[in-house]
Amino acid sequence: MAAPDDVIHTTCLNYTKFFSANDKEGWLGLFAEGATVQDPVGTPVHEGKEAIAAFWDQSREMVSEIELRMIKANVCAGEAAFFMEVRPTVGDQQMVLPAIDVMTFDDDGHITTMRAFFEFGDMKPAED
Amino acid sequence: MAAPDDVIHTTCLNYTKFFSANDKEGWLGLFAEGATVQDPVGTPVHEGKEAIAAFWDQSREMVSEIELRMIKANVCAGEAAFFMEVRPTVGDQQMVLPAIDVMTFDDDGHITTMRAFFEFGDMKPAED
Repeated sequence: MAAPDDVIHTTCLNYTKFFSANDKEGWLGLFAEGATVQDPVGTPVHEGKEAIAAFWDQSREMVSEIELRMIKANVCAGEAAFFMEVRPTVGDQQMVLPAIDVMTFDDDGHITTMRAFFEFGDMKPAED
Repeated sequence: MAAPDDVIHTTCLNYTKFFSANDKEGWLGLFAEGATVQDPVGTPVHEGKEAIAAFWDQSREMVSEIELRMIKANVCAGEAAFFMEVRPTVGDQQMVLPAIDVMTFDDDGHITTMRAFFEFGDMKPAED
């Protein structure tokens, strides 16, 4: 049985909150053990928590501060897609990049697959 | 080989344009022969152009005017996800519902799978 929609909504929101707060352990705790991450779609898949943790480390080496600003999460039948702004701080400048994450979940509401859709060419300086 | 990103961007935009213009044949022409549509995710899958055409007819019987307003399409490695507003006219009132469509494409840029994420509970009167 799929996790209830409200549980999945909370997971999506926590995904952006923990990520933005640089809370690696909180963020990793949202994933199921054998979860896969493809970020962005078309790049190699990171499989399992260890690989996902390594992917986090690699991302934070490039950019130490990244805010994820949730715009709208839609949950349907145990799956989710959400539109958000990815806001990395590059030097002194916050940048903004619109992204869509698509996720599946196990019965407990842990993320089993995450696939991110964004285009680097959309990145521009944030105005707010 | 996946269709080029600009071809897929055009298909996504035409999807919203043809749909909004009530151009059933134009809209159907965007799909590959054996395409599948699940709208929203969790409901029965419509497989093949005939079934997709029947799904169109069924939707238009309920609401004769539906505008799809594209907000942002992201194309990655031959797949796409886009955030839009679904704006059906109910009586004299246009309503608005935020939705995310996720699509795959064949090498010619025709849609092979379409899955829509939205929550009916989000529907509210449009203010513009």
